Order: sequence, then structure tokens, then C-alpha cells
Amino acid sequence: MKIEKKTLLAFIEAVGALAPECRVWLKNDGMETRAVDTANVALVSAKLPKGAFSEYDNGGKVDVMGLDISKMKTALKILADDRDVTLTLNGNRLQLGDGRYDYGNALLDVNTIRKDPNPPNIALPACIVLDAKELTEAIKAMTHISDKVVIAVPEDGTLTLSAEGDTDKLTKDLTGRAVRSPGDKVLAAFSLDYLNDMAKVIKQAQGEVTVSLNTDHPVKFEFAIEDVAVEYLLAPRIEAD
Amino acid sequence: MKIEKKTLLAFIEAVGALAPECRVWLKNDGMETRAVDTANVALVSAKLPKGAFSEYDNGGKVDVMGLDISKMKTALKILADDRDVTLTLNGNRLQLGDGRYDYGNALLDVNTIRKDPNPPNIALPACIVLDAKELTEAIKAMTHISDKVVIAVPEDGTLTLSAEGDTDKLTKDLTGRAVRSPGDKVLAAFSLDYLNDMAKVIKQAQGEVTVSLNTDHPVKFEFAIEDVAVEYLLAPRIEAD
Amino acid sequence: MKIEKKTLLAFIEAVGALAPECRVWLKNDGMETRAVDTANVALVSAKLPKGAFSEYDNGGKVDVMGLDISKMKTALKILADDRDVTLTLNGNRLQLGDGRYDYGNALLDVNTIRKDPNPPNIALPACIVLDAKELTEAIKAMTHISDKVVIAVPEDGTLTLSAEGDTDKLTKDLTGRAVRSPGDKVLAAFSLDYLNDMAKVIKQAQGEVTVSLNTDHPVKFEFAIEDVAVEYLLAPRIEAD
Repeated sequence: MKIEKKTLLAFIEAVGALAPECRVWLKNDGMETRAVDTANVALVSAKLPKGAFSEYDNGGKVDVMGLDISKMKTALKILADDRDVTLTLNGNRLQLGDGRYDYGNALLDVNTIRKDPNPPNIALPACIVLDAKELTEAIKAMTHISDKVVIAVPEDGTLTLSAEGDTDKLTKDLTGRAVRSPGDKVLAAFSLDYLNDMAKVIKQAQGEVTVSLNTDHPVKFEFAIEDVAVEYLLAPRIEAD
Repeated sequence: MKIEKKTLLAFIEAVGALAPECRVWLKNDGMETRAVDTANVALVSAKLPKGAFSEYDNGGKVDVMGLDISKMKTALKILADDRDVTLTLNGNRLQLGDGRYDYGNALLDVNTIRKDPNPPNIALPACIVLDAKELTEAIKAMTHISDKVVIAVPEDGTLTLSAEGDTDKLTKDLTGRAVRSPGDKVLAAFSLDYLNDMAKVIKQAQGEVTVSLNTDHPVKFEFAIEDVAVEYLLAPRIEAD
Repeated sequence: MKIEKKTLLAFIEAVGALAPECRVWLKNDGMETRAVDTANVALVSAKLPKGAFSEYDNGGKVDVMGLDISKMKTALKILADDRDVTLTLNGNRLQLGDGRYDYGNALLDVNTIRKDPNPPNIALPACIVLDAKELTEAIKAMTHISDKVVIAVPEDGTLTLSAEGDTDKLTKDLTGRAVRSPGDKVLAAFSLDYLNDMAKVIKQAQGEVTVSLNTDHPVKFEFAIEDVAVEYLLAPRIEAD
């Protein structure tokens, strides 16, 4: 397999924001993974289609690799930014090379990695498309006030974030494009620790991010970075009302 | 009240270099404050004239606000650099908005803030106008050598800084424009901790800073940042001779 | 003595990467020093020829100064980047000035500094000239994997670095110009702590660095920064094989 470094890096960073390790499925139509964080609060799903690779060969059958995210980040720190990365699977060893540096790493035993999470079957009636940069700036601003934010869709096309500190309160209205209408106002509270980790990835998204919400339900973010399709799901904080 | 963000920020940073909270007087001709640091060693006075605001309305009578400087800094970190900030007083709550973010904060009870210091009645016969950047660079250089600096006016138009370390000594002569002549050489020693905090603000001054000095007396710095007129007064260290 | 600040800084930084103090000999043909690190593992030799100074006068006889490297770094931090530095020896005091700041420092008693190390008499049959930037990048990359690196010359004109982590391994081949041929492959292992400190200096070298190697012997790096001729020698780690 051969791919631009920045595309592989986007895939690894999208997963790494939440999970320290993951199973990567090498399917006929591309590479994909799904992982949850240690506390079981957030879920990431990332797909890298075959077309994103300049060379892709899974040997004709679905294979699976156990990836240590921090080792992959080390390798990608060393490999040159402007070069293609060649990935070669040798038994339980993955080689990454850019023609200048050669990095080899033993894969994790997939049986020691927790099972792929099933995406929960939830209805999220409010769905809105937003500017990715505006959303991530708003999330960052909220972290100055509290460790928790209330996200609401008070009306079609508007997403509102608000955070309360000891004596202060910050609110921000974001205007987007309504995809699905909730009818009534929906809102839920979320941990800014998780949201901020996700925001660092989302802010690299191409232009837009789709946000889906329901009262006291998880929030879902869908976006693309380079050729990677990413989906984040984050459970609400119990204190929400 | 409506004002450019950078002007409000200059006012808050000038005070924040020394004090964590202050009373701000909303007078008919503008906003002003005077505060001392916790150890009672340094005094700051800052004035923002009505003309610096694009809108200014104190309701026709002098009002006073108890400001928590760190909350104001948080708000100004969030509000956009290139926009005007609207300040609205709602009972004991101050709202700051830039049309995108809305930040509200409960004011401090002015009775819990220490009384406004009276500026000491002192004679400072040496007075010299200097390049603000040269002075603040010299203060920073002295911090590499010691935690104390001797400031002297050995003759009209010259200000000398010198600091002694365990085995080393640094001296720097600054040339300026004499405003008042001390007759004889005057000098005093000052804490570089305080001077360095002041220097971070002074280096943003428009061009020049006026320094007034007398032997074993406080030193006074007068300068302007944006439309803010600032005055710092710093007591000498007892060890000076 | 008078010299460009950047040249004096290069001399001080080349020594300072390994030793906290040194004896500097003021010879008729220039300034030079030789020092070992505290653990006696690495040796530095640095020479600054008379021609590098715009003024040089050792009073006609060889003199020696005991330099505290950290004090020299403090002085060079304060003195302006774009100016010449004047060094004046006044008894046991060294004055450094750039016409704006004047810094004086008591010299160390040369009798308290450990004797000048004798360069060991060793044969290093493999010798190769490399691009300094490529070599230092490779050393930095190795630090991500381990605290030890194996350096080898497997064949004329090639230098190979490899580091092994717990489950991973990084290798990098560097192509250079063979100066001396070892006949057989030579290799030795070295501490990346030391190499990385050296690399921070070597990466400022003009273009090239000459590396000399023998199996389980010290490695030698020779290069020039500004007008300073530098030589580093680093003992191998015992674990090498």
C-alpha cells in the first residue's frame, strides 16, 4: 500500500484523538476502523477508501491489523511530509518507509484489543451543516469558561453553545444549513475535554461539518479530512437538563 | 459603551500587570482606575477618556464597577481582535459582546476591594523622556543578572541601569531628553520582578515613556498605549544606597 | 579583541554542548580550547583563528582564561546580534561590550578547572564526509525510538544509523563521500543523549561534517561553524556489539 503521508496522518490523528489503539480492517474497497475511548464515552469511525491510495493491495481477502496509535504517530513524525508512505505487512510486522527512512513495528495482537463497538441505534432529529472552523473556535472559547457545554438547536439552522463558569457565562450562536428539523428545541450537555480533543481534528476538516443532536442523546459529528471520512459520537453528560 | 477591543485590552493589561482586581470609575469624561499591588509596593493609575469610546453613556452620573481582571482577560481572549466590544451594565452584571460571542460576568462587590490608594505626595526632581522600547529591553537584560537593578540619573539626559550578579555586572546607559534636572546625581534600587511586569506593558507604549526619579524614592513611569494614559509608581528596595 | 557576536557565540555553544566550563588559550595565532564532559565520555576541541577577529591582541604572550560557559551565554544573550563584541581582559575580569551594553565577569581560577584532556591516540579507519543537515536530522529521528543508536559504515561512502525500541526499529542510510576505507564493515553503539546535544551544534555547520568510525571505538565529528573549527569525540556505549 502506498499513500500520501498527510492522508495517512489524518486517519491516524482522527482515531488517536480518542483511542490509543485500534483494529484496522483492510477491506477490498479500502481501510477502515472503529474504536471507543477508554471510558466508553466517545466513538470514532474512520474510513480511507481504496482510491485514496496510489497503490492498494490487501491480497484479495479482508485482513485486520492491530495498530498502536502512538507508534504510528512516532513513525509519521519521522517520515517526510512531502513524500508518499509505503506500508508493507510482513507477518505481524508493519513496515513504513518513505525511501529515506525505514520504520518497522510489531503489530498488536488483535485479540487483546477490545471488540469493535457497534454504533448505537439512535434517532437524532436535529441535523445541521456548519462551518468547521467556526464550530471548533466556539468549542475552544467555551473551554475558557467551564469543563462542560450545553449544545442546543433552538430553531432550524441555528446551533447554540453555552458554558457557565462560577460567576460568568458565555454563549455563541452558530448559523448553518438545516438538514433535518427537530420540530421542538433539543439540547444536551457535553464534556469539553472530549469535545476539545475532537475539535483539534475537526478544525482540519474540509470546510464543513455535519452535527446531529437530540435532547439528552449523544451528539454526532461527520466530516472529511483529506480523503478520510470521519464520524465522532459523544455521549451526553448526565447533569444535562 | 462601545470601544475597540485593543483599547479595552490595553486598559485591562496595564492594571493587570500589578493588581488582580480594581474599582473602575465611570465618570462623565471617561473611565478610570487606580490600584496597588498586593504587597503595597507598586501603584497603577489608568485613564480611558470618553473620546476613546465610539459610544459612551454612564447614565449621567458617576458609577463604579468592581472588576475581576482575570475574568476580563478571559472575555477579551474570546472576543475577536478586529471588532468593537460593547459593554453593558445590567445591575451587578457586566455583559461584553462583539456581535458573535456574548460574555456576561457578575461584578465584584466594590466594598470588598481595597480603597483607592492616594498617590503619595513626593518630589521627583529628575525627569527624563526615553524611547520606550530601549528602556524595556534594558530592564529585560538586567533580569538575566539579578533580581534588583539600580536606576540612576548621573547627569541631565542620561538614565543608567546597572545590575550585579554573584561574579558579574551589567550596565547600560540610555540617552533621553531631560525634562527636569536633579542638580546632583540621583539613584535608587528597584525590584526587577515588578519592573519586568511593568516593562511588558510599557514596551507597547506609543514611542516614549517619561521616567521620574529621586534618590531612595519611588520611580514613576508615564506613558500612553492606544488611548489609555498609564502611570506606574514603584517603591525603592530598602537595600538601595 | 573584537569579533562578530555570531562567531563568538558559535565558539561558546560548541563547547557548551558538552562542558560547563573550560580553559581558553589565547595563543599568538588565535583562541582555542579543549574540554571533556563531566562523565568523561565526550571531548570537544574548538579553535578560533586570529583571522576571525577584527582585532586580536594577546599582549605577545600565551595567556589562559577560565571561562564559565553559562555566564558567557548570559552575556551573549544580552549583546546585540548584529554588532561586534569587544573582549577586554582586566586582570581576572573579562569585559564584553557591544557599545550599548557593558558586561563584566570574574574569570574562573584556571587551577580549579580540570586539566586539558589529551586527545586519545586512536585509529579510525572509516572516514566519510556527509551533509551536516541530513546527519543531524537522522540523529534527531533516532531519539524518537531509543536512547541508543548503532552507527555503521557497511561499505565505502555509506553511513547507516539504526535504533531499536521495544517493538519497533528505525534505520536510515546516509550517502556521503568516502575519505578513508575501512575494508570491512565497522560499527559501534552510542548514547543519543550526547549525540543529540552535539547534533544541535553540528546542524549549524557550513554544509558538511566529517565522520570517522571504528568498531567499538569512539566516533569523531569534524566541522566548521562561522570561523570556528570544531571536533567532537564520543566514546561508544559498552553494550555495543
